[in-house]
Amino acid sequence: METATICWQGTRMSTQRDFAAVILAAGKGTRMKSDLHKVLHPIAGRAMLDHLMASVDALAPSEKVVVVGAGREQLEAAVEGRAKTCLQEPQHGTGHAVQQAESDLAGYEGDVLILYGDVPFVRSSTMEMMLDRLHEQDAPAVVVLGFEPDDALQYGRVIANADGHIEKMVEFKDASEQERACTLCNSGLMAVKGADLFDLLRRVGNDNAQGEYYLVDIVNIARGDGRHSAVVVTDDPGEVAGINSRAELAAAEAQWQELKREEAMAAGVSLKAPETVFFSWDTELGRDVTVEPNVVFGPGVKVADGAHIKSFSHLEGATVGPNCQVGPYARLRPGAVMEEDSFIGNFVEMKKTTLGPGAKASHLTYLGDATVGAKANIGAGTITCNYDGYFKYQTVIGERAFIGSNSALVAPVTIGADAIVAAGSTVTRDVADGELRMERAEQSVKPGWADRFHDTMKKKKAAEPKK
Amino acid sequence: METATICWQGTRMSTQRDFAAVILAAGKGTRMKSDLHKVLHPIAGRAMLDHLMASVDALAPSEKVVVVGAGREQLEAAVEGRAKTCLQEPQHGTGHAVQQAESDLAGYEGDVLILYGDVPFVRSSTMEMMLDRLHEQDAPAVVVLGFEPDDALQYGRVIANADGHIEKMVEFKDASEQERACTLCNSGLMAVKGADLFDLLRRVGNDNAQGEYYLVDIVNIARGDGRHSAVVVTDDPGEVAGINSRAELAAAEAQWQELKREEAMAAGVSLKAPETVFFSWDTELGRDVTVEPNVVFGPGVKVADGAHIKSFSHLEGATVGPNCQVGPYARLRPGAVMEEDSFIGNFVEMKKTTLGPGAKASHLTYLGDATVGAKANIGAGTITCNYDGYFKYQTVIGERAFIGSNSALVAPVTIGADAIVAAGSTVTRDVADGELRMERAEQSVKPGWADRFHDTMKKKKAAEPKK
Amino acid sequence: METATICWQGTRMSTQRDFAAVILAAGKGTRMKSDLHKVLHPIAGRAMLDHLMASVDALAPSEKVVVVGAGREQLEAAVEGRAKTCLQEPQHGTGHAVQQAESDLAGYEGDVLILYGDVPFVRSSTMEMMLDRLHEQDAPAVVVLGFEPDDALQYGRVIANADGHIEKMVEFKDASEQERACTLCNSGLMAVKGADLFDLLRRVGNDNAQGEYYLVDIVNIARGDGRHSAVVVTDDPGEVAGINSRAELAAAEAQWQELKREEAMAAGVSLKAPETVFFSWDTELGRDVTVEPNVVFGPGVKVADGAHIKSFSHLEGATVGPNCQVGPYARLRPGAVMEEDSFIGNFVEMKKTTLGPGAKASHLTYLGDATVGAKANIGAGTITCNYDGYFKYQTVIGERAFIGSNSALVAPVTIGADAIVAAGSTVTRDVADGELRMERAEQSVKPGWADRFHDTMKKKKAAEPKK
Repeated sequence: METATICWQGTRMSTQRDFAAVILAAGKGTRMKSDLHKVLHPIAGRAMLDHLMASVDALAPSEKVVVVGAGREQLEAAVEGRAKTCLQEPQHGTGHAVQQAESDLAGYEGDVLILYGDVPFVRSSTMEMMLDRLHEQDAPAVVVLGFEPDDALQYGRVIANADGHIEKMVEFKDASEQERACTLCNSGLMAVKGADLFDLLRRVGNDNAQGEYYLVDIVNIARGDGRHSAVVVTDDPGEVAGINSRAELAAAEAQWQELKREEAMAAGVSLKAPETVFFSWDTELGRDVTVEPNVVFGPGVKVADGAHIKSFSHLEGATVGPNCQVGPYARLRPGAVMEEDSFIGNFVEMKKTTLGPGAKASHLTYLGDATVGAKANIGAGTITCNYDGYFKYQTVIGERAFIGSNSALVAPVTIGADAIVAAGSTVTRDVADGELRMERAEQSVKPGWADRFHDTMKKKKAAEPKK
Repeated sequence: METATICWQGTRMSTQRDFAAVILAAGKGTRMKSDLHKVLHPIAGRAMLDHLMASVDALAPSEKVVVVGAGREQLEAAVEGRAKTCLQEPQHGTGHAVQQAESDLAGYEGDVLILYGDVPFVRSSTMEMMLDRLHEQDAPAVVVLGFEPDDALQYGRVIANADGHIEKMVEFKDASEQERACTLCNSGLMAVKGADLFDLLRRVGNDNAQGEYYLVDIVNIARGDGRHSAVVVTDDPGEVAGINSRAELAAAEAQWQELKREEAMAAGVSLKAPETVFFSWDTELGRDVTVEPNVVFGPGVKVADGAHIKSFSHLEGATVGPNCQVGPYARLRPGAVMEEDSFIGNFVEMKKTTLGPGAKASHLTYLGDATVGAKANIGAGTITCNYDGYFKYQTVIGERAFIGSNSALVAPVTIGADAIVAAGSTVTRDVADGELRMERAEQSVKPGWADRFHDTMKKKKAAEPKK
Repeated sequence: METATICWQGTRMSTQRDFAAVILAAGKGTRMKSDLHKVLHPIAGRAMLDHLMASVDALAPSEKVVVVGAGREQLEAAVEGRAKTCLQEPQHGTGHAVQQAESDLAGYEGDVLILYGDVPFVRSSTMEMMLDRLHEQDAPAVVVLGFEPDDALQYGRVIANADGHIEKMVEFKDASEQERACTLCNSGLMAVKGADLFDLLRRVGNDNAQGEYYLVDIVNIARGDGRHSAVVVTDDPGEVAGINSRAELAAAEAQWQELKREEAMAAGVSLKAPETVFFSWDTELGRDVTVEPNVVFGPGVKVADGAHIKSFSHLEGATVGPNCQVGPYARLRPGAVMEEDSFIGNFVEMKKTTLGPGAKASHLTYLGDATVGAKANIGAGTITCNYDGYFKYQTVIGERAFIGSNSALVAPVTIGADAIVAAGSTVTRDVADGELRMERAEQSVKPGWADRFHDTMKKKKAAEPKK
């Protein structure tokens, strides 16, 4: 299966590097107006912070330290086992934030890459470029990631010479006309040798209007020591865009989705209306897959070659085999596995269920905790009764079995191969191979009853007080 | 609950004013190609005319008069009890239209604000600005609302001096090069003192190609009397855009939706794909509400903090409590009330039904005219049979009750607390607290029957004439 | 019923012409990354090639020849009975491709129009313009269709004089600065008299880097013979856009949909969010039809005046009568016919079924192979059991019949007029007019059973090993 791989997952590492990543995430994120920590808000179904950590992980870092503050419990839980956390409390600026990582990096000799939890889409290749620059012959004290936005606005400027050596880092408000005319801006991201970093930071002062310790000052301090710093420039200003509000979050989502759609189409996926299809960060799609308008992919979905996903389908944690047909209005929940040539039609929900090759569930059905054999036919309105209010139970349906419409299969229950369940049956005991099972009472026939009922009710209706 | 309030509902009144609004709505709206009167076409689920009237009402007008003509019955019914109507028949221009309101305003001494039913988004603050200008020291005879569009096209021009005193109102076709170069355009909206209005109007002539009486002429007539008029200018040319076709209607809808989405995100609502979420004029959304792609809100919906509305949900007249989960594919109809932490899953419809705290209806269910107790569990395929073809009846389900899948509850019926209805049952009599109710026939078992059936049918199928 | 007619279907023929169309479609379409031939990929539900052939057919061609190569079997099957095919194998350029049609056009004396299968949206009027130009007094040897794109990029240029006589056709790479400054580009489409075409083609050489025979060379060869050629220019560069990738396919789809939406709105259809409604090439919509956001129309749908299609509906091969209400979440499949004032509600599927005037199926229902009489009421959860795994059977429901909720109608079966089927019944035998039919077992009542069950299960749950 040729798959449309995922954007922004980081590139392969070309050289072994020894570095630690310090990720700043202590800010309140007030503009999000959320009880959820800003960097945990998802883009394409994955927390911002996890997008960033995946790009870091692609470079095999020696250490990751997340600097936490507001909402620390949420972050500590989120990165547990994957990164260290250190607390910045109270919060006195970016320089102060990085300083908090000092004890976590005690004795560490490699490089340090300084990242921001709310700048999630920095590419691994950009991180590599920064780290590699640190080890070029001119040995800069600090490497700063610069960017050139369409509109430089009020970003701080990087004043550098033709060699990329930095002459001055300057805040917009302090910049001269001439400095403002320079549109190379400071992203805030830096790479510094561990041996230099904390010494430089200790000398950062807070003699400014906000009384904060600014990370950017280490460049000027190094310069005072007679050491130069260097700027490297990303060719995609979008990758250093910070996310501070839900509108910016939505814009980042839109940007991610657009890239992913283009990638999918280039790999041989037909999207009739790309702008209406929403992928997750890990969606995998085969060749000659067709996705109709208005389809939503949650995390964990793989779709094999030739499958057809019809409109208004919603897939999460599902595997769709070759040439399957899905929808419209199919809802595949985690653990749904459709084997080749199988069919899920409208208003059908699947959960923790495997549908065998060529099997069909065409309409108005719930399949939960079930295994359906090859070429079985699940009639309209079939329900697997998998829950008794306390525990979940399995339903097993054999190959070529035919489940009549409007049947309830009370799990745990097994329906044999080639068996038939008659329409409208509630099946509570196993059905053997080749057996017919029918649960049905006598039909009582009351000629003329309905006519009399209509007469009575029409009179009653007519007698109703008018509204 | 912090709510995202609605755009374009008008601002609070800062000063008491005495004014009458005359709303012109006699035109045919031919380009709409509709049997529905143009100003009754909805934007964000509310008639154009009602958007305008809401902005007027925010200023507490003394009187509202809607001038009707074509489709008058529709308009009279629409505004009954909320505004007077007067008939313009035949229709001889805007001046003639306003004149028709004279008898309705007989003896009225306040100001008159002249509005257009198909220019629905004029803000209350703009109306205030017009009325207030009328009472400034220079006492203009007429106040005209001007606008400066990106492209002035063929709009009539307002030629004014630096004080905002109007020197001339001129139609584009009659304008000199120099006049056309002036891009201050006439919106058609005016404020005039009641004491002046009808006297001025009586002197408007119809000596023009169309033989019509143009409202705009009152400015020039006042000038002939030695009285000046003034222009005030809106900072948002969009608010005076007229709607004459379904394409313009769709454009106005899009503009409204975009503003509303931005407002919602700014207030703390996550919209993963804002462009796919459609609100109504009165939608209220709490903080940390998440709305997934492709959700439609009809009128009358309130969503409390922390609720999660999943894709493909459709809500009208529904109340969603704190931390509820809705959808995907949930259809909440008027009278649906979800109490906190309750859950409505896929392919579930609710109508005039209250779902108690923590209660769940996860799949393929219809709940109509029902009350569901706290923590009750409604199994897949449950149907409340609330209608007998003539009347509707109530279903009451107790706390913690468990309704087995594929059950039909024939209303009126009460299911007690902690009761269990077995899967596949049709329940026609009340079920007591803690009782098990089961309606089920014997399962008939026919070993080998299905095998024989398959043999027979395969032969029959094979014998079919080939197509 | 006033219908919104379909865009790009070709205009009416004004004069009889005698021409053959040669459509080049031998290319591999590698960039599509598809097993489906490029020109068979659909736009608006119709293969690219069929869009083009429809525009050709509107001019009543004497002959159509499709030049095939890669994927020939697919194309031969697709055009069988509608056009000849001829094989280009191996593929040595456009001139070589057209040459392959010679034997199919042996003895043919009319004009030849050369088209491309992946340039599907050339209008009939443009084809006419090309053919007519061939017969003007100056009798050009070749007529070339030129276009003036916003950005001429690296297209080949047409160097022509003021009369439209071509002085030179030049590839971008061979063009002088001055020639590149000319932005009249070669679309590749040509009209040539049959009597000239193959003689000119025989003299085309392949002395170029690719070793290919280029069609465009016939212009220069004719010039060498002392004959002039002429260019005609389309006013819509979009109509000659070629489609080479799925992204370009999606862009063409988007362009088509936008035109169709505008056409629909202009004809009196309300589209609340036009960008979310997807039509097919043959969708017909009446006046005062309302289509809510997120509706998908497959091929073969007609919607009559005043019908209301609610959100999340999906229609294919369906006929919706006047003032019908559809959806939300209605799925109308081929053969669904809704007669006037009928109603299909949420999560309802119809297939090969006629719903009589005023009949309703409001919720969670499957109607397949059925006829429903006027004003019948189909309760929630009703299923027509139309399939036994081998054959399909009919269900007939009489006028004003009432089908209780959660019923299964096992076809073939007839429910009489005014009959009532009680909720939860499985009906296997015909029901007479005015009869009540009920299939229902005794309800078994077990007081306190549920309470005891809860006690047991809670203990069991509590005893579970913690996860």
